Amino acid sequence: MTELEPYAVRLRRRFALKAPICVGLDPHPALLRAWGLSVDPAGLARFGAIVVEALADRVACLKPQSAFFEAHGAAGLAVLEETMAQARQAGALVVLDVKRGDIGSTMTAYAEAYLGDGPLAGDAVTLSPYLGFGALSPALDLAEANGRGVYLLVRTSNPEGGLIQSAVTADGVSVAQSLVDAAAQRNRSSGLDAVGLVLGATHADLGVDLSGFSGSVLAPGVGAQGGSLAGARRLLAGCEGPILPALSRQILRAGPDRDGLRAELDRLLESDRPAD
Amino acid sequence: MTELEPYAVRLRRRFALKAPICVGLDPHPALLRAWGLSVDPAGLARFGAIVVEALADRVACLKPQSAFFEAHGAAGLAVLEETMAQARQAGALVVLDVKRGDIGSTMTAYAEAYLGDGPLAGDAVTLSPYLGFGALSPALDLAEANGRGVYLLVRTSNPEGGLIQSAVTADGVSVAQSLVDAAAQRNRSSGLDAVGLVLGATHADLGVDLSGFSGSVLAPGVGAQGGSLAGARRLLAGCEGPILPALSRQILRAGPDRDGLRAELDRLLESDRPAD
Repeated sequence: MTELEPYAVRLRRRFALKAPICVGLDPHPALLRAWGLSVDPAGLARFGAIVVEALADRVACLKPQSAFFEAHGAAGLAVLEETMAQARQAGALVVLDVKRGDIGSTMTAYAEAYLGDGPLAGDAVTLSPYLGFGALSPALDLAEANGRGVYLLVRTSNPEGGLIQSAVTADGVSVAQSLVDAAAQRNRSSGLDAVGLVLGATHADLGVDLSGFSGSVLAPGVGAQGGSLAGARRLLAGCEGPILPALSRQILRAGPDRDGLRAELDRLLESDRPAD
Repeated sequence: MTELEPYAVRLRRRFALKAPICVGLDPHPALLRAWGLSVDPAGLARFGAIVVEALADRVACLKPQSAFFEAHGAAGLAVLEETMAQARQAGALVVLDVKRGDIGSTMTAYAEAYLGDGPLAGDAVTLSPYLGFGALSPALDLAEANGRGVYLLVRTSNPEGGLIQSAVTADGVSVAQSLVDAAAQRNRSSGLDAVGLVLGATHADLGVDLSGFSGSVLAPGVGAQGGSLAGARRLLAGCEGPILPALSRQILRAGPDRDGLRAELDRLLESDRPAD
């Protein structure tokens, strides 16, 4: 494998050249049908090829949602491998949304699957911390070693997450804050900023202090879930690192026409420009 | 698809006939090598076939760990499909350890992948609740409709999980307790006991009150992680539902010889018999 520069370096370079957003590649059944595609691996493959062709050279990142491929079993995963290869080929960074989290040798296996050298490796992946920040070490180690990144679920965009994410730990801070602090510490130690956060853009107040956190923030919830790009940037104004708003349905509804997808992206970016 | 009886009914029937434990099917690289197998999809397939042949008609459940198959990409998932089909064919219930958890249409896609009618559907699957109990509804709905079950991560066997799992929610109880209560309520409403819990058998005190919870409990951490079968049963003495201790390395180390694996299982069950 070609040795990769650190993910944070690659992300910043991509931000300088392309639209600084992440487009979710979410081939759910209703969307496949709306695009006139079959709800099967062939439909998934066509969907992926269209999105990559239309958008991969225009946005910083594409974010395939693994669940929609897993729903078609091993055949769906083969399409995911192919779609990720196409996206990389076109220059986009691939943030694979898998939300994995486990312990010990199992966590090591997930790290190898998604942050190693195999066909499902993303430039970055999402991780779920219910088993503890420390349990994710195999993934953080491999991401740092391989020029890849992770986005840790901290404060998710949905309302049901609050009970757990805002619970108070033995250290006297919220679960979400304890994860922000652990991630910030890890980034300071490594100097690589390989650890990013997932912070939903749907909240009026995230309830976390981001000062001192220098990694990137993946902000889902923009568009169909009610958040706006400007709102996401306002919400995360205290953040030192790059902010990567994630949106999906708001753009994808303009497909399957390639020019329609590009025009929708342009409209969205136009609306995101600060007023003079 | 043949309509299945409720998972809880099938589990209790299996408990009456077979050893009431769950054997983890964890083909990590070191184990494959120790068995003289290649660390590739062919090695995975051979590993799965050996474990199924040796143990599937002797224990209640087999628990494939998805991560070790995902580490080999789509080709590994194809082996997982094949191994799960063999296990079902041999009569074992398949608890697929995937620890998925997401929201909205993504959670629905995971539910369809693992609790629907596809090749990766388990008799039960593990779920991770960081995005909230309510976000898992699509999986709980589908499990109940399809005679399948879920095991919700509550108090995991590793030490790093405590900070989050013991944090105190706005309701004044721990995260772990709030999940036990939500699962108990769900089981009372459905009358199906489709929702089980994952409670690590490595803790001296789980710190949760299980009274009123009638689902089954998957108890990992027995064996190589330091817990014993008897210890797991003591720890969960207050539990009304069936207890399913999960172990893996302690038995698998006796492979790849089929008779060796069976002898190790017998030894383990012998040690679990109450003293007269």
